[in-house]
Amino acid sequence: MPTTVNTTRAHTVIARCLRLASFTEETGSIRRTFLSPPMRACHQEIARWIEPLGVTIRIDAAGNLRGLYPAAQPNAPRLLIGSHLDTVPNAGAYDGVLGVVLAVALLEQLQGRRLPFGIEAVGFSEEEGVRFGTPFIGSRALVGRLDRELLDTKDMQGRSVRGAIEAFGLNLEEIPEAKLEDGTLGYIEFHMEQGPVLEKMNQPLAAVEAIAGQSRREFRFIGRANHAGTTPMNLRHDAIAAAAEWILKVERMAQDIPGLVATVGQIEATPGAANVIAAEARLSLDVRHGSDQIRKDAVDNLIRLAQEIAVRRGLSARQSSVLKQSTVAMDPFFMAEIEKAIVATGCKPYRMMSGAGHDAMILAEKIPTAMIFLRTPGGISHDPAESVTGEDIEKAIECGLHLLDQLAASPQFHKRTIRA
Amino acid sequence: MPTTVNTTRAHTVIARCLRLASFTEETGSIRRTFLSPPMRACHQEIARWIEPLGVTIRIDAAGNLRGLYPAAQPNAPRLLIGSHLDTVPNAGAYDGVLGVVLAVALLEQLQGRRLPFGIEAVGFSEEEGVRFGTPFIGSRALVGRLDRELLDTKDMQGRSVRGAIEAFGLNLEEIPEAKLEDGTLGYIEFHMEQGPVLEKMNQPLAAVEAIAGQSRREFRFIGRANHAGTTPMNLRHDAIAAAAEWILKVERMAQDIPGLVATVGQIEATPGAANVIAAEARLSLDVRHGSDQIRKDAVDNLIRLAQEIAVRRGLSARQSSVLKQSTVAMDPFFMAEIEKAIVATGCKPYRMMSGAGHDAMILAEKIPTAMIFLRTPGGISHDPAESVTGEDIEKAIECGLHLLDQLAASPQFHKRTIRA
Repeated sequence: MPTTVNTTRAHTVIARCLRLASFTEETGSIRRTFLSPPMRACHQEIARWIEPLGVTIRIDAAGNLRGLYPAAQPNAPRLLIGSHLDTVPNAGAYDGVLGVVLAVALLEQLQGRRLPFGIEAVGFSEEEGVRFGTPFIGSRALVGRLDRELLDTKDMQGRSVRGAIEAFGLNLEEIPEAKLEDGTLGYIEFHMEQGPVLEKMNQPLAAVEAIAGQSRREFRFIGRANHAGTTPMNLRHDAIAAAAEWILKVERMAQDIPGLVATVGQIEATPGAANVIAAEARLSLDVRHGSDQIRKDAVDNLIRLAQEIAVRRGLSARQSSVLKQSTVAMDPFFMAEIEKAIVATGCKPYRMMSGAGHDAMILAEKIPTAMIFLRTPGGISHDPAESVTGEDIEKAIECGLHLLDQLAASPQFHKRTIRA
Repeated sequence: MPTTVNTTRAHTVIARCLRLASFTEETGSIRRTFLSPPMRACHQEIARWIEPLGVTIRIDAAGNLRGLYPAAQPNAPRLLIGSHLDTVPNAGAYDGVLGVVLAVALLEQLQGRRLPFGIEAVGFSEEEGVRFGTPFIGSRALVGRLDRELLDTKDMQGRSVRGAIEAFGLNLEEIPEAKLEDGTLGYIEFHMEQGPVLEKMNQPLAAVEAIAGQSRREFRFIGRANHAGTTPMNLRHDAIAAAAEWILKVERMAQDIPGLVATVGQIEATPGAANVIAAEARLSLDVRHGSDQIRKDAVDNLIRLAQEIAVRRGLSARQSSVLKQSTVAMDPFFMAEIEKAIVATGCKPYRMMSGAGHDAMILAEKIPTAMIFLRTPGGISHDPAESVTGEDIEKAIECGLHLLDQLAASPQFHKRTIRA
């Protein structure tokens, strides 16, 4: 099996990502949400690439594209490789899509050779949470968590997930059949890093060691509106000034604790007039760390600091939890094999946290799961300027082929097969 | 002439302010903008109070209510006393209106007695700038500054000032006749302080020494949007964090310089998502001080600090001027007489800056002008909770009567008459 990838193949991957980008809900920009009309064209295009390899595609009842590349023996267990096909609004061409296109490229590179396990290429229908405000609709179906509450969630047009599934011509009754087969060997996801770390480290690829836990909270500082011209500084209860003091504490805490990231990305002040001292400021807080304890302590300290600042300034502070997600560790065996495969491509091994959530987080609830990150130029994603280099794609395909070879030859992997 | 005011009269002033509050564009709250339908009812109501005193009301072409209480001699010069009749949205019952109702109360207190000068009660049509985004439309007409540009300004419904004047049944060609008569002696305005200073000082009344100059600017910090989970702290260019650092500098500078007030009342961040580092923050800055030089230096320093913060953090900072208004001094003779009148009511003399702009600022361009502030409970104004106490209104009426007596007897005031 050839592991040296020619440049043409890497460029095909890029061309295919750009081709899928043309299936969009909005002319002039990329936007492809859960079961929107362009998703059908996207499925048909991938089918055209993959069916010549002996793979038949089905769209499961949650709208996930799934195509099984058969094993050497019938009824052998399968390994899943994939990512998601939906995008954010005004997206780039690679986030998610790249992982699906790379899965197809790996199957092509096998050139008809069968492995001891089947490979199921997966294109998840929904990861970004754009249409229904809830992410991971696609991968939840595989772990049996596409529940009634989620099915009843409505989009901005008042259509439910249930309604969207039916409108796409899928059968709600078949949702249980979207679940993972017994004995599934695991899930591998290629994804762009979406951050600047690999570029900074001069690394094309990394094995993801965990998906960082995340706390999202809403904070409110409640002071008193007053006239900006007639209220002396010492008689103010300025919600914007209190918020500013706290924002710097958030930043400082994250700078001081290795691995912690903390972000205030939203701020709104009322009444919001140039000549009125702000009565209230509402802020978002997003805190992530690989250690759930460190994250929890950081959030607790930031709540305490908000209270201290509010009391000292004669305001009140309130906060509430919006989202809480524990750290999800990736499978250690897969991680070690991925690092070995990275080394086999001539690169240094590198492990890193994923600060962003991914479908892998959901699959890890049920099966061994791992992710391989590709360097992201400028760390730019969720933006039309998102890019990947041909060289890094070549490394990713090489790494994937080494990994498949290693797994095919690994007694430990086969033992896991038997256990599953 | 009696200078001891009975409580009934003070309560009549409050009742009349509340009565005018019922003429509103919005049921359930007070809102009366330039030449809106309730302004007509407001004029008619005031006419009912004032016409029994021998005063005929006219509405000038800019919509100002004007009623001359005659002098002892025909053709004697006149002193203007008044304030504005328009309100902000969701207003209280006293801002502006109180000064007009107090002018009426003073005329009533004269009980038919004629002074050596006429008294023109004025109710300005527009001071708050709500409908057209430009304040002082009424008082500008008196100083000849209701120019074509202002007349062409449009409201949110696309109607111009010109159109609003015609729709109210007024004659645009008569705008020149709204101008101050030659020989007008001056303008006195009673107004609530709209701040907490007099309450803090335990003073019912104050003579305003100047209306503080004001600089209003818009600042923008432009960084780079990035993923809140995947971007390490040291690789961020966070516009909200930069803005927060600068907001604290604004507050600190104003705390350190006596008499300076500086306010960031508006902040907007884009893209404004909890999981995205802010690319841009837009902020308002409002700086006021009695000394134009101190204000100018403060603004220059804050621009420099914004640049420093931006450069250090790898962002850029831009800013532009929205409004620049020099300090307007009140007439020293009037101020001294007002202080004397305040003392005559049994209170201590007190002088203070006005942090807010007032019609007096416009009138001072042409004639001697002064203001008398009334204590504002809690410093609350521009709010339904706005209030004044009956006791302070009594003091204000007493003070006004003393002032009229003093002016009637003052050779210096008469000399000014002859000069005018």
